[in-house]
Amino acid sequence: MPPRTPIPLIKMDVKKAPWEQEKKPHNRWHPDIPPVAEAKVGDLLRVETIDWTGGQIKDDDSAEDIKNVDLSRCHYLSGPIRIVDEQGVPARPGDLLAVELCNLGPLPGDEWGYTGTFDRDNGGGFLTDHFPEATKAIWHFDGIYAASRHIPGVRFAGLIHPGLIGTAPSHELLKIWNDRERTLVEGGEGSTTLGGVLHTRPLALLPEPKGAMLGGLPADSAEWARVAAEAARTIPGRENGGNCDIKNLSRGCKVYFPVFVEGANLSMGDMHFSQGDGEVSFCGAIEMSGFLEIKCEILRGGMDQYLTPMGPTKLHVHPIFEIGPLEPRYSEWLVFEGISVDESGRQHYLDASVAYKRAVLNAIDYLSKFGYTKQQVYLLLSCCPCEGRISGIVDVPNAVATLAIPVAIFDQDVRPKPGGPPVGPRLLKRGDVAKATYDGSLPVTVNPCLCGSSH
Amino acid sequence: MPPRTPIPLIKMDVKKAPWEQEKKPHNRWHPDIPPVAEAKVGDLLRVETIDWTGGQIKDDDSAEDIKNVDLSRCHYLSGPIRIVDEQGVPARPGDLLAVELCNLGPLPGDEWGYTGTFDRDNGGGFLTDHFPEATKAIWHFDGIYAASRHIPGVRFAGLIHPGLIGTAPSHELLKIWNDRERTLVEGGEGSTTLGGVLHTRPLALLPEPKGAMLGGLPADSAEWARVAAEAARTIPGRENGGNCDIKNLSRGCKVYFPVFVEGANLSMGDMHFSQGDGEVSFCGAIEMSGFLEIKCEILRGGMDQYLTPMGPTKLHVHPIFEIGPLEPRYSEWLVFEGISVDESGRQHYLDASVAYKRAVLNAIDYLSKFGYTKQQVYLLLSCCPCEGRISGIVDVPNAVATLAIPVAIFDQDVRPKPGGPPVGPRLLKRGDVAKATYDGSLPVTVNPCLCGSSH
Amino acid sequence: MPPRTPIPLIKMDVKKAPWEQEKKPHNRWHPDIPPVAEAKVGDLLRVETIDWTGGQIKDDDSAEDIKNVDLSRCHYLSGPIRIVDEQGVPARPGDLLAVELCNLGPLPGDEWGYTGTFDRDNGGGFLTDHFPEATKAIWHFDGIYAASRHIPGVRFAGLIHPGLIGTAPSHELLKIWNDRERTLVEGGEGSTTLGGVLHTRPLALLPEPKGAMLGGLPADSAEWARVAAEAARTIPGRENGGNCDIKNLSRGCKVYFPVFVEGANLSMGDMHFSQGDGEVSFCGAIEMSGFLEIKCEILRGGMDQYLTPMGPTKLHVHPIFEIGPLEPRYSEWLVFEGISVDESGRQHYLDASVAYKRAVLNAIDYLSKFGYTKQQVYLLLSCCPCEGRISGIVDVPNAVATLAIPVAIFDQDVRPKPGGPPVGPRLLKRGDVAKATYDGSLPVTVNPCLCGSSH
Amino acid sequence: MPPRTPIPLIKMDVKKAPWEQEKKPHNRWHPDIPPVAEAKVGDLLRVETIDWTGGQIKDDDSAEDIKNVDLSRCHYLSGPIRIVDEQGVPARPGDLLAVELCNLGPLPGDEWGYTGTFDRDNGGGFLTDHFPEATKAIWHFDGIYAASRHIPGVRFAGLIHPGLIGTAPSHELLKIWNDRERTLVEGGEGSTTLGGVLHTRPLALLPEPKGAMLGGLPADSAEWARVAAEAARTIPGRENGGNCDIKNLSRGCKVYFPVFVEGANLSMGDMHFSQGDGEVSFCGAIEMSGFLEIKCEILRGGMDQYLTPMGPTKLHVHPIFEIGPLEPRYSEWLVFEGISVDESGRQHYLDASVAYKRAVLNAIDYLSKFGYTKQQVYLLLSCCPCEGRISGIVDVPNAVATLAIPVAIFDQDVRPKPGGPPVGPRLLKRGDVAKATYDGSLPVTVNPCLCGSSH
Repeated sequence: MPPRTPIPLIKMDVKKAPWEQEKKPHNRWHPDIPPVAEAKVGDLLRVETIDWTGGQIKDDDSAEDIKNVDLSRCHYLSGPIRIVDEQGVPARPGDLLAVELCNLGPLPGDEWGYTGTFDRDNGGGFLTDHFPEATKAIWHFDGIYAASRHIPGVRFAGLIHPGLIGTAPSHELLKIWNDRERTLVEGGEGSTTLGGVLHTRPLALLPEPKGAMLGGLPADSAEWARVAAEAARTIPGRENGGNCDIKNLSRGCKVYFPVFVEGANLSMGDMHFSQGDGEVSFCGAIEMSGFLEIKCEILRGGMDQYLTPMGPTKLHVHPIFEIGPLEPRYSEWLVFEGISVDESGRQHYLDASVAYKRAVLNAIDYLSKFGYTKQQVYLLLSCCPCEGRISGIVDVPNAVATLAIPVAIFDQDVRPKPGGPPVGPRLLKRGDVAKATYDGSLPVTVNPCLCGSSH
Repeated sequence: MPPRTPIPLIKMDVKKAPWEQEKKPHNRWHPDIPPVAEAKVGDLLRVETIDWTGGQIKDDDSAEDIKNVDLSRCHYLSGPIRIVDEQGVPARPGDLLAVELCNLGPLPGDEWGYTGTFDRDNGGGFLTDHFPEATKAIWHFDGIYAASRHIPGVRFAGLIHPGLIGTAPSHELLKIWNDRERTLVEGGEGSTTLGGVLHTRPLALLPEPKGAMLGGLPADSAEWARVAAEAARTIPGRENGGNCDIKNLSRGCKVYFPVFVEGANLSMGDMHFSQGDGEVSFCGAIEMSGFLEIKCEILRGGMDQYLTPMGPTKLHVHPIFEIGPLEPRYSEWLVFEGISVDESGRQHYLDASVAYKRAVLNAIDYLSKFGYTKQQVYLLLSCCPCEGRISGIVDVPNAVATLAIPVAIFDQDVRPKPGGPPVGPRLLKRGDVAKATYDGSLPVTVNPCLCGSSH
Repeated sequence: MPPRTPIPLIKMDVKKAPWEQEKKPHNRWHPDIPPVAEAKVGDLLRVETIDWTGGQIKDDDSAEDIKNVDLSRCHYLSGPIRIVDEQGVPARPGDLLAVELCNLGPLPGDEWGYTGTFDRDNGGGFLTDHFPEATKAIWHFDGIYAASRHIPGVRFAGLIHPGLIGTAPSHELLKIWNDRERTLVEGGEGSTTLGGVLHTRPLALLPEPKGAMLGGLPADSAEWARVAAEAARTIPGRENGGNCDIKNLSRGCKVYFPVFVEGANLSMGDMHFSQGDGEVSFCGAIEMSGFLEIKCEILRGGMDQYLTPMGPTKLHVHPIFEIGPLEPRYSEWLVFEGISVDESGRQHYLDASVAYKRAVLNAIDYLSKFGYTKQQVYLLLSCCPCEGRISGIVDVPNAVATLAIPVAIFDQDVRPKPGGPPVGPRLLKRGDVAKATYDGSLPVTVNPCLCGSSH
Repeated sequence: MPPRTPIPLIKMDVKKAPWEQEKKPHNRWHPDIPPVAEAKVGDLLRVETIDWTGGQIKDDDSAEDIKNVDLSRCHYLSGPIRIVDEQGVPARPGDLLAVELCNLGPLPGDEWGYTGTFDRDNGGGFLTDHFPEATKAIWHFDGIYAASRHIPGVRFAGLIHPGLIGTAPSHELLKIWNDRERTLVEGGEGSTTLGGVLHTRPLALLPEPKGAMLGGLPADSAEWARVAAEAARTIPGRENGGNCDIKNLSRGCKVYFPVFVEGANLSMGDMHFSQGDGEVSFCGAIEMSGFLEIKCEILRGGMDQYLTPMGPTKLHVHPIFEIGPLEPRYSEWLVFEGISVDESGRQHYLDASVAYKRAVLNAIDYLSKFGYTKQQVYLLLSCCPCEGRISGIVDVPNAVATLAIPVAIFDQDVRPKPGGPPVGPRLLKRGDVAKATYDGSLPVTVNPCLCGSSH
């Protein structure tokens, strides 16, 4: 009886380009992208992934690669994997696919990652109106720990997870996605519910053949062209899971995905060594290549049994999941509040996004008093295991959001003390992230009460 | 050397009306409401509070009291307390007031609470477009545990906290509040950022002398009339803390409040035996009378040292806090996701409030498969120690919110299993909450894919 | 429907002597001590207790009261309580009595406690051969927190629990206890398995009428004399629970006690605000008066169903319990090891007691480098929430015990650092406990490698 | 700047015998075993290890390999590793060597382990007088989880750790070990402090050339013979760390070892996928091959600064350690108590080993009511993440030990319930471990009250 070892289902070579991989990844969602592998329920499968940009970002001290990243070529996913039961019968639409994340990690020999924020004219981030320039921090891994030469004085245990994992949409679901996102884009700024607060980021990314990679589809075929023109972009999380960037999908977690196409066609990628709730800087987790060891189970008819669709069709559902037992334990937290009043003092109505923006801005300012630059803290809050909560969502007109930061990740005590934060020789300056210039012309959000004092 | 015992600073008698209390509470924010007590830093103070409605809600099986609640008379706060240092020098504007919540609990002899959702025409709640009727559940306390005859099969340890605690605003800050909230109300529905999703709740509650209670101010004085006309309502959390409804302000927590007026004028009330993140049903915590044992410290000049104002003035700040070591421990969580697509299928832009609404709706539907009515689950998710997270806030166009529920609070296993949830004789029906009729005419949000199937 | 409030079953007045209380406590175990109260399953009962010495120890700065304590008068227990089911049928021998500890706390107005170590000739402690003198530290409570003027620089949340809780023994069980303990005492030093390592403490305390208090039994009756001559002392934990000093019997815990006599006759006392595993200094918890709110359930026939007797009779059983959800959370621990080699270098065989003694001695020495006296650390490790583990019990000849201390209870960083612990002006001296002289003549255990350097 | 990757310092090939490995392991402690590798502080080192028996145990369903294991050939350690600082200066006696366990895991392709208990005449275990026969359970790993076909219905996350890690002893320390252990053996049964309770296991294992493996020492040299005759066996934990079997030395842990020889000569092995406190069945962890990624730091002079020797020499010290942040989280525990009264009813004096034995026996009997055999539970309690506590060590004459078991590892609810454990068709029988016959003649400890009922 041989020892049980994960089945090496999909391998990746980080020294090769995405299109040179043996089992070609894909970076769009479409039911007609053919499976690259098949697997049985109960098997322990090992799936390797390349980093989400397919190697565009380097371990160096310049942010030019971040500034010039090509976001039409991103989220290279390993898969689709066709899942069948013990008798070889594939998962069917209407089933639930339970995926247990049995183990996760960086690829051996590639134990590093990066956190960045994009240039405002090329993707931006949650606070791009405050921080329009591209920045980058490199993280090296000491086993479970991550540390960065660009943000010294901080170290934490990773909460490794796939930023992106999901099943393939059906044609019907794909059409729903494309229609509703096109409507949003066509409506323009005026149609957004965020009322101009994040007004300079793309509203949505519509299907775009440029940069598309469609796995096993022959690149010069008519089929390729058709699928590329229809296939959904990967940035948002949707009914199939997708790029949910939920940091708790970590070791030991079990996710229940709806199945929309025969075989489920499960894909995954965009591995994160760690991420904070919200992933605020957008390229905000510690992005890396990596591996997943997963185990699948099919719950026949599970969509009907467990998921309630809400919306025009039965396809308007969401995955659910159970959290695993190995999240890092922290017992002491410093917490920042935000209410739904924006930087100009304008009152918004129960807007949790605005409230969370304020909480993050408050935390950045606070921590920058301890020797960090604001850009360092912005990246740190994107990738460290901080928790973003919707604390109050009913007390009109203010939503209250909170951001809780584990104090043990710092090598200094960052809690308030009589006498104030360290000053003078006691204040240790702590380097900076790599930065690129912002050459665009969009206005920066000014904090009026600081009268133009610099960030 | 006598044993140290909390100083009984403010006592309340739950058998009396608010205006019959010895140290009269107040239910508006205004700098000119005079302190009812003075206390020194370092002293352990005991402050008693009545429930937030001042006794309007009864321990019975009818929801008529909830339906007819008078919300102009709510949030009866104990205080203001003027805080001075060891030398008797009061806290001054610009200081931070650190308040340690050393102990919290129900009032002896009054160990019960209630959770409700208001009628849609009288306050509503986060999901009032789905659940327009008033409902109520009564909870009795077995020491640390709460259980309800209206929601059988569930029991959990309380995470006792004040829903409302804060310092008094200055005149300048009060004006900022009133101005910005008035602007919102005057703008009407069209000005809200939530795009009509919660369109039938009040936008904000402006100053209103009717129902005002102003502590020690003589009720028939000109001063009373002036203050009542200006004083801010207590519903929202604001720069001074206030009704933040943050469930983690529990035993052992330390909150740092900005000081806006001499003496800080600290007030508190609206005690909760337990609450979930978001307090979604609005009257959603387990509301009760209670006591706080607190200890204060003044950080001179702390506002400048630690808080960064963001907005037109230096007063645009938020409190920060440290979490205490005694929160209930749960290790197994079932998590529901929501994205910013509303029930009609419309795409919203990075709207965490919409995403959270979907996550809550998903959880309600899911749990209602286990023998509960949807109204029971709605109330349960308002008051049990569930966690609401902003998981992804950058992946255009979808915000992703998650709602994590500790499975140990149920007396049955509510996790997905092959074969589906219990049916037939295995399904235990679990009673219902008290309900009142909704007699208004506002339309209920329909889940189109269910074609009018009832809640 | 009135609010549910704990039934005040047994009240104590800390200003009165034990024999002046309305419902007289008892300090011996005997089946013929009559119940002082009766209670029904399902009721929430409030039981008050006086401190274990019945008021012999004062809140002052002298250790003379500890030195001269009368240990024949200790462990004043509230009870016995006769437990009956809903129909009034009492618990019967062979049942299990489930007791839920719904809430616990100090008595209002008496919020303080003490930790001490007894004189070596009057009780001693685990390390009495190293620390023969009586010492005392007083703790005051700030709500959930304890702090001591005798051990400054340390503060922690209490893990409140009854040191002693149990059911009454039957006549048969009582005889087993008295027989086996008498055999031990009669065997003398040579019969102990600890081989002389703790050779100067009493081996066991046999029945002793002097100091006995027997609840409702008339003090001058023949019955009193008979029972007093037979009744077991309360120091050790036994088959009925009793003085187990298990720190995890805290809020929310549920204990399953065997029932040996009709009605179960449940008694409790010796409340602790906090205690470390092992309670090493003997009077080692933070001892206090207090209250318990409990709820009972009878599992008919549960002893047969769940407990396996092991020994000559069916009475040789142990209680079991479930831990509650509200223990303080700590995430960072410093851990000390000990192996079963004694201070003279002698090898013992898999002796976990010797190994734990070494671990505690190691921790005392280590922490004394940070400005504390060894006596302070000895008391601190008795009462703070440290964990004592049997890590290895099979690797001949060494047992390995570990003592884990939460670092967050200190106001300084006590972890090892390059450069060593603070010295010179960086080393803050931190006062001392109250001490009495040791006037006996027993030899102190010398650490040979220190050549007589003082403790 | 290349990505940081662990330096592959020592590789092992599990298909080869120990003596065929490139860098030969050693299975004795001696200062003259030469280092097989050198490493610098700050480097991330990868060290692979074979399982502690060097491949004697197979993944099959027979326990004959366990029964006939050769314990003179065990604990094959990888190392010694000579540690030098950045300038190449080696660690020196008197320093502390801080070893951070940055990552740990099974060897890729060898993801399985075993738990066993030895035959009473060949090593035995903590309960060998109850369970004299050899048994075995095989565990396969699903990423972080372990499950066994021999103990179905149980699954838990591993708490991976090295059972054995330590620095080399000096000649002086080695002599101390050999002398004290020889004295114990020569004293015979009568000299043991455990009073006959575990009377049939070896008292200690003295130096023994047979089976010795001494790393790089030429096997036929005079040096080999000298060292083999002197070198200490590896079974017990000692002053250098060694086989402490502390389950908390897991990912993220930092251990501070005393340095006794130049270069420290760090060795490690005996990897465990999981273990319970005490490792009661002796071969009781989930034993496996594995890897460690470690990082070293030298604290110059740290022994004097931080460790207090206690005993005849300055070498009588113990390591200390900090616990890492990634231990599995469990919130619900069922706890068993034991007091120091043995199975015959005899009273022992504050003997924590006897008390822990009772707690383990109680837990075995209890859990065997749920469909498991006692041998299954015995192995399970050896390897699952249960906690063994010294709860009370001062209440003469009874020590109280507790064993806490996380209930979430079972697929059924094992808590007490009215009506008793499942019986009849509700009781699922759960297979059994592999067993060998016990052919010896030592008497089994009888539980008198069961009158010879079988295990």
